[in-house]
This record gives sequence, C-alpha cells and structure tokens, in this order.
Amino acid sequence: MLAFSRVAIIGMGLIGSSLARAIRAQLPTVRLTVTDADPAVRSRVLDLDLADDVADNAATAVIDADLVILAVPLGAFAAVGVTIAADLAPGAVVSDVGSAKAAVTEALASLMPPGVHLIPAHPVAGTEKSGPDAGFASLFHNRWCILTPPEGTDPTALARLTDFWTRLGARVEIMDAKHHDLVLAVTSHLPHLIAYSIVGTASDLEGVTQSEVIKYSAGGFRDFTRIAASDPTMWRDVFLTNKDAVLEILQRFTEDLTALQRAIRWGDADTLHHRFAASRAIRKAIIDAGQDADTVNFGRDIAPPR
Amino acid sequence: MLAFSRVAIIGMGLIGSSLARAIRAQLPTVRLTVTDADPAVRSRVLDLDLADDVADNAATAVIDADLVILAVPLGAFAAVGVTIAADLAPGAVVSDVGSAKAAVTEALASLMPPGVHLIPAHPVAGTEKSGPDAGFASLFHNRWCILTPPEGTDPTALARLTDFWTRLGARVEIMDAKHHDLVLAVTSHLPHLIAYSIVGTASDLEGVTQSEVIKYSAGGFRDFTRIAASDPTMWRDVFLTNKDAVLEILQRFTEDLTALQRAIRWGDADTLHHRFAASRAIRKAIIDAGQDADTVNFGRDIAPPR
Repeated sequence: MLAFSRVAIIGMGLIGSSLARAIRAQLPTVRLTVTDADPAVRSRVLDLDLADDVADNAATAVIDADLVILAVPLGAFAAVGVTIAADLAPGAVVSDVGSAKAAVTEALASLMPPGVHLIPAHPVAGTEKSGPDAGFASLFHNRWCILTPPEGTDPTALARLTDFWTRLGARVEIMDAKHHDLVLAVTSHLPHLIAYSIVGTASDLEGVTQSEVIKYSAGGFRDFTRIAASDPTMWRDVFLTNKDAVLEILQRFTEDLTALQRAIRWGDADTLHHRFAASRAIRKAIIDAGQDADTVNFGRDIAPPR
Repeated sequence: MLAFSRVAIIGMGLIGSSLARAIRAQLPTVRLTVTDADPAVRSRVLDLDLADDVADNAATAVIDADLVILAVPLGAFAAVGVTIAADLAPGAVVSDVGSAKAAVTEALASLMPPGVHLIPAHPVAGTEKSGPDAGFASLFHNRWCILTPPEGTDPTALARLTDFWTRLGARVEIMDAKHHDLVLAVTSHLPHLIAYSIVGTASDLEGVTQSEVIKYSAGGFRDFTRIAASDPTMWRDVFLTNKDAVLEILQRFTEDLTALQRAIRWGDADTLHHRFAASRAIRKAIIDAGQDADTVNFGRDIAPPR
C-alpha cells in the first residue's frame, strides 16, 4: 500500500517539476495536484502534462492532500504557510525541499493546525538549470534526501515520508535541523557562494577583458561557472536563511585561504605540496561513494581508445 | 611541408604524453624522441609505444631535434635548460607547455646558445589526471594555445610553431608573457587555489565529519574536487612561479568575497540577487565559445526524453 494517495506540490521549478515527473514515473496511482505563483509556469505545466490538476493557488492545491510539499524559494515559505494553513487536511504531512532547515522549520511550525505533521526534507540534488522544463524524473536517483523531523514527530508519519522518498529512488537520512544546516553550509552553500564570488571577480578586472576570461576558461574557471549559473532567487534566500552557519564556515575558509596565500608569498613549497596532495583522496572517496561521475574532465572530452 | 621533422619532448606526464599521442595521430612522419626523469615513466612510455625513441636523459633526447618541448613542472625548467643547452641543434626551436611564462622565459633565455629560438607556449588544456596513461590525442582540440615570443623572436620560427600547434587541433594566440600570467592567474590559477583551499577546509572541520562531506557533496562541493585532484607538484610550482599575479588576483577575490559576506551579514537581499544573476551570462558565453559542454550537470545525470 502506498504511503500517500493525494500529493500536492507548491512551486514547479527545477525541483518541484522533477518531483512531479518522478511521482508520475514511480507512483502512477498517486493523484497529483500542483501549483505555482507564476501563471506562465502553471500554463507551461499544463502543456507539459506534469500533474492531474494544476490549481490556481496554494490554498486550493492542498485541499484533501495527504502530503503537501513546498518547493518554493525559502523566502516564500512563511507566506505559503499562512495561505495553506486553514485548508490543510487533518493528518496531512507537510514537507518541503528547501536547502536550509532550522529557521524555516521554526517559521512554519507555529502555523500548522493541530493534527498536521510538519516534517522538513531536503533532497540533495539539483542542476544549474531552473524552471519546469529543466526537471527530470531521475534527478533524485541515488541522491540523499535528508529529513529533519522536529522533536516529538509522529513515527508513522516519518515512516511514510521515508517510504515516499525511497520509492522515488533517493536514500533517506534523518538529521537534526541545525546539524543539517552546518553540513550543507560546507558541502553546498559555501561552494555556491565562492563560485558566485569568483565569477564576479573574473568579470570585473582592470587588466583582463571578459572575452579573455571566456576564451581561456578551460584552465579551471569554467568548472566554477556551472554552479554559479544556479537560480539567483533560490540562492539569495539560502544565504539569508542559513546566515549563521554560512558565516561560520566562510570564516574557516578565509583562514585556510589566507594560510595558502602566506605559503605562496613566502615560497613555502612544502606546505603547498602537502595541502594539494591531500585533496586527491577526497575526490576518490566522492567517486567511490557514487556522488560524482568518474569520467575524466566530467566526460567533456571524448578520449579515443588506447 | 611540415614545420618540424624531429621533435623531442622532455617530460611524459598528462600533457607530454598527450602531445606525443597527438603528434603520432596528426603528424605521423615526424620522428619523435621523448624522455622523462622517472625510469618507471620511461618504461611505461615504451610499453605504450608513444614515441620512436625513448631517451635515457634530456641531453640525449634533444640531439638533432628541430623542436624541443619541455613538459616538466615549472620548478624543473632551469635544471633541464642547463642539461640540454650544449646539445641543442643550431636553429632548433625550444618551447614548453608551462602554465606561467614570464619568470620561466627569463630563466631559460640566458641558457640558450646563439641560433636557438626560445618561444614559450601554453596549451590551455588538461584534466585532473596525471601521468603517461592519462594522456589522449584530442586533448588540444578546439583549445587555445598561447605563444609568448620574447621581443625580437624570429618570425619564421614563430610561424613554424604556430603551424605545429594548429595541426594538433589547437587555436593559437600570441600574447605578452606578463599579460599571459595575469590572464591565467584569473582563469586557471585562482580557481585551482580556491578549489584546493575549500577541499582542505571541508576535510578538517570540528562539527562535520569527512564522511558527511563526501555523502552530501552533490550539493555543489563535488565540482571543486575535480580540479583539486590535479597534480600537486605541477600546481605547487605554478603558484611559486606566478606568485605576483596570483597574489594580486587573490586580493581582488578576497575583497569581492568580503563584500558578499557583508551582504549576508546585513541581510542585503538586493546585492546578493544582483551579483548572483550576473553570473548566468558568463556561463552562457563560455558554452557559446565552445569552452565547456552544454550538458546539464556536466552530463552526470542522464535526462530521460521529454
């Protein structure tokens, strides 16, 4: 028996639309209602036939749903919470796909009517593209989905949500919300911030033109531009929402970068070599864990047979 | 008629061995002699049959060569220059594939006998792998090769080297050595330094374990680990050799990152959104210029047909 029979998704960008496609592919008997604040997106979702119903607004979308998933930028969570609260069905599970958990959970928790189960979730998956056309059903395959149930969460509701994500191909991990925010600050938020920053630096220099940066980007710069092409609204909200953890990790990064800077200035060859050599082991571990492709150069080049 | 009939390559790592394979594929009549300081590499090159002759040392390798290419870490350039100087053929072109040009050119120039043409070169191409097994013939296809001829370089020698790289599939650009070093500090050296630094930060934190970093690396961190898996000796030498330009660009990056840090701390949503939105245009320009693959997520995920 399926854990949920009527699912509502609020927000049909990359993640919401991937979720809709994954539900259609893996859970075809689920009745799926979706919505988006942007009428153009709702119309596109109709054209793409991604759901059984496309509701005009979030309040309508959640009626009778036993699982509601917020897939909007973090800055819109509180407003959506207010909009849907009165229409949530008793016993419904309310979840999300946001990249920061503690602050958002707090904001939503007080809005939930009695009998509704709030269980925040974060599937650690994505691409640099945005919008309903960018989604695909296999996005969550072999990726981790982190659930951050507040204290006292109903174990049955938690088991149902775990089952749901597992059927979509994800591997589920349970974590404390604050710890989630620190872990993701390291593995996702800091890399995005740095990528945005270096792309900004490179495009605004006195001695080097933008066309030179583009021409010679294969030397390493191009790798940073992929994640710096991610949705600006989503990422603005991530940094504003997970501010404390991001600032803490950023401080550590700056210290480490300053140490490398000193080593360069003073010609400390041993420190540089030691630090650089250690990085290879991490790359290997990530590939061994199935979290990145093991093709050279991300498979950009086609190596001929040897 | 070919520009060169006898080519010697000193150093058979990723770039040297790719060059050997490219010469074999595109210029099969060239007589190719190679060497490497490491006997194990020389033996592997013999097994792989990458050259007509594998010389025991650099001095022997360059005898009668009309093109000599140094493909060793930058720190070994001066020693190789001393070793080969007496055995260089009159009229030979001496070139290289190093990632920094000004300091190295200066170090080599005084060692060259009269009648030998020193024309430094830098093919902007590579992968995260190292060693003779990692090379492939198409590595330079559609990539830029920057030549930095010193003042007074013989135009015929320059034309011959341009022809050589063009036949290997590269696009050739002529540039001043100091300007090259600044451009590459932005597009290649700074990205590598930052990647090494963030990988170091992530693997040595109090609150987050290394296995968590690996598990959730798909959130963005994994993109940085690719270039941080590059050869540590080569990169140590790049930073020590191109010190001034790297420190200058690093200072600019730190200022820009500090500005983003302030925007996060003070909740300046507009600044964050504005900076993030600008990055998409650069990504698009790099793809349009053929310097990166336009597959989503570097093609890691296989998107189903829509």
